[in-house]
Amino acid sequence: MSKRKEQIRLGAFLQATGHHVASWRHPQADADAGLNFEHYKAVTQLAERAKFDAIFLADGVGVRDRSTSVEALSRNGKLATFEPLTLFSALSAVTEHIGFIATASTSYNEPYHLARQFASLDWLSDGRAGWNVVTSGTEAEALNFNREKHFEHANRYERADEFVDVVGGLWDSWEDDAFKIDKESGVFFDQDKLHVLNHKGTHFSVKGPLNVARTPQGHPVIVQAGASEPGKELAARTAEVIFTAWQTLEEAQAFYADVKGRLTKFGRTPDQLKVMPGVFPVIGKTQEEAEAKYQLLQQLIHPSVGLALLGGVYGGKDLSSFELDAPPPPFPDDTNGSKSRLKLVRDLAEREGLTLRQLYERIAGARGHWTVVGTPEHIADQLQLWFENGAADGFNVMPPWLPGGLEEFVEHVVPILQQRGLFRTEYEGSTLRENLGLPYPHNRFAKGDAAATAAAAAQPETASAVA
Amino acid sequence: MSKRKEQIRLGAFLQATGHHVASWRHPQADADAGLNFEHYKAVTQLAERAKFDAIFLADGVGVRDRSTSVEALSRNGKLATFEPLTLFSALSAVTEHIGFIATASTSYNEPYHLARQFASLDWLSDGRAGWNVVTSGTEAEALNFNREKHFEHANRYERADEFVDVVGGLWDSWEDDAFKIDKESGVFFDQDKLHVLNHKGTHFSVKGPLNVARTPQGHPVIVQAGASEPGKELAARTAEVIFTAWQTLEEAQAFYADVKGRLTKFGRTPDQLKVMPGVFPVIGKTQEEAEAKYQLLQQLIHPSVGLALLGGVYGGKDLSSFELDAPPPPFPDDTNGSKSRLKLVRDLAEREGLTLRQLYERIAGARGHWTVVGTPEHIADQLQLWFENGAADGFNVMPPWLPGGLEEFVEHVVPILQQRGLFRTEYEGSTLRENLGLPYPHNRFAKGDAAATAAAAAQPETASAVA
Repeated sequence: MSKRKEQIRLGAFLQATGHHVASWRHPQADADAGLNFEHYKAVTQLAERAKFDAIFLADGVGVRDRSTSVEALSRNGKLATFEPLTLFSALSAVTEHIGFIATASTSYNEPYHLARQFASLDWLSDGRAGWNVVTSGTEAEALNFNREKHFEHANRYERADEFVDVVGGLWDSWEDDAFKIDKESGVFFDQDKLHVLNHKGTHFSVKGPLNVARTPQGHPVIVQAGASEPGKELAARTAEVIFTAWQTLEEAQAFYADVKGRLTKFGRTPDQLKVMPGVFPVIGKTQEEAEAKYQLLQQLIHPSVGLALLGGVYGGKDLSSFELDAPPPPFPDDTNGSKSRLKLVRDLAEREGLTLRQLYERIAGARGHWTVVGTPEHIADQLQLWFENGAADGFNVMPPWLPGGLEEFVEHVVPILQQRGLFRTEYEGSTLRENLGLPYPHNRFAKGDAAATAAAAAQPETASAVA
Repeated sequence: MSKRKEQIRLGAFLQATGHHVASWRHPQADADAGLNFEHYKAVTQLAERAKFDAIFLADGVGVRDRSTSVEALSRNGKLATFEPLTLFSALSAVTEHIGFIATASTSYNEPYHLARQFASLDWLSDGRAGWNVVTSGTEAEALNFNREKHFEHANRYERADEFVDVVGGLWDSWEDDAFKIDKESGVFFDQDKLHVLNHKGTHFSVKGPLNVARTPQGHPVIVQAGASEPGKELAARTAEVIFTAWQTLEEAQAFYADVKGRLTKFGRTPDQLKVMPGVFPVIGKTQEEAEAKYQLLQQLIHPSVGLALLGGVYGGKDLSSFELDAPPPPFPDDTNGSKSRLKLVRDLAEREGLTLRQLYERIAGARGHWTVVGTPEHIADQLQLWFENGAADGFNVMPPWLPGGLEEFVEHVVPILQQRGLFRTEYEGSTLRENLGLPYPHNRFAKGDAAATAAAAAQPETASAVA
């Protein structure tokens, strides 16, 4: 790949109907977006016209909602949606350049299935797949997979660590040029270029080989989002992109320096890991118009949704009998849930003297993400500030509502970034990996690669079974 | 659905490069078909133009091959392919009518994942998904999923039985009209139309609800292929289509009567289960041309492939030192593998006095499927004979090689069936279910349905977790 000036990378982080908790109630929102392929097709093609690197989907294997009542749950507009790998496969057939980063959990999956489906997506899309590696930490998910409780944090990451290694090994089952497909001699693949993994570890025993060839990108781009200590270590060792959530430049800079600093010990260089914080942009022609747009969404938060969310911070308290436009009831001294979250919310309420309604609006709307409300220039300035000051290699754009929130960003913010030379006007490569400026990965088993020689000694046995 | 004259249903059973063991070596075959989306797109659009009900993919979670040597394995042209659910999702975006029946195993999957991915495919395709329920019976697959051995047959079917029930329950998590999506009141779904499964069984504990709405078909079409006793029971209880493999009209009739006869005890009627045997057609303008086409493929079977397959019947014997054009070496008296298969092959060799080469050609080529070699009229006659004599409701067409084998069937056999009034000239419905003439399934939890009342009493708790 030829050297190029570093530019901002952009992901479109799509959540059905948008990221604001009340987005589906926005008058122009596609309220049925979650299971509407035409919606996703239009939004993805829009992002592709704007030269976004990728679209990104979060994921959970269950109905995940903080609500403590079915009444509040019934106001959640995002709980019935496409599964990401199937949706992205379909979208790959109607696009040519944009990448697809799908979240999939290591907690309730098997490495062989995920290795195979992501490899399949990489082939379908001709090199545009990415895997956002997560662990599952909600009880709602555990209960769908034969468990009473979700896995402990440390255990989840230990499993994730091994899971990623197994998937990587399966992706290297075949060397790039293993498939000769020589009709004349009848040789379909070169025996020396098949590598059986034979993994036996703590959590998994997986023999291999994968029944998919090595993919157009070598392997799909590995993405992570964990900000915990084991999450950062896993990312530094294996990830090529990190999604993060920070509210201030200082926090983002500290995280950026932290994870980039961890790369050396794994023999990696800083350019091999792209850091992409999330940003929730609310765009207006003037600052006043932008603020008004934000308020429109905030006012659509139904009290029962806001109170149910806030009740969680109070340790599951039912807040429905309290006056909305009065100060919130006293906070508990301690909680079984997140202590840092309790402190943050209590401090916020006291510092700004918020009413109960104002308080839930503040914590519900953008769900704690970096919210930038203002003109296109203001938003471009903010992105540039973070990009040029060691806080970000790019951004995961989180439209407040869809499709309008993305349309506004594409029409008004992207051109400014392009005029400033901060963002591409044409795709540089043909794969997601190339567009992100990431290197093509070696096959760990291929000859010439130091680590391969020992592994290659334990050579393929034949998978003997019924055709 | 209005009453219509019963007609033949047709599935196109696609195997990468075609069904013949040497198909990839055919001079006009797309030898790289397994991971070539443009190939699948062209073949699927061809089947859709011909008004096929569906395309069908078998599947395995491993490199499954009977070969006993890597040398023989290296001549297998079908071992690196797309994963069916991702491939079909992509194909759904470039087609409008044809159905997609994907095989997925109950042995190494979790019900929540499969329920979700098939529901997602049904939404993506607007009601064109089908699930071919199988159990995994090869060691090559077990070794990819933390096991030393595959599950025992009885245990596999017990698990499959419960798996299918859990998936069905998850698909009924939401009633058809659960999602009101009322922006004004802020109510996204009707609380009374959410049903939490709360399944606790022998193999699975799955709470639900599914994070996908009830699908356009109510649920994807359920397909099965097992011919064993527990397989037939499972099919009679739950399947809507059965794929089968029979060589003679008599066998096919017996099977047809058997499974249709089992429906009554499950409160079902014969039209609720369509029986579709596989057929491997080799088509020529004359009988002689058809025979020559078949011989062309047979001669492409490399001796090491044929001998490795036949060696399996001998109990893993290396046959490479034997003379190909002489009688086969003596058969063992008994085997640890399939006794019925040993007997069948031995009887065939002795009855027809075949050479070693002739013998492996006979067992390798169409892998035991109903092979019809002849003119388009002859093939149409055979299909009509089976269809009109209680042996089949339709057929799973297995092209010997691709794309030509399917093109010939579409160009020459389909028009004859249409002229005889045996096959549609336009799709009747908009979903796979409608085209197959299958009823829309009730939601087991919906009011008015007898079984629902008790289930509905155990009403939804809220899935309480982190958004």
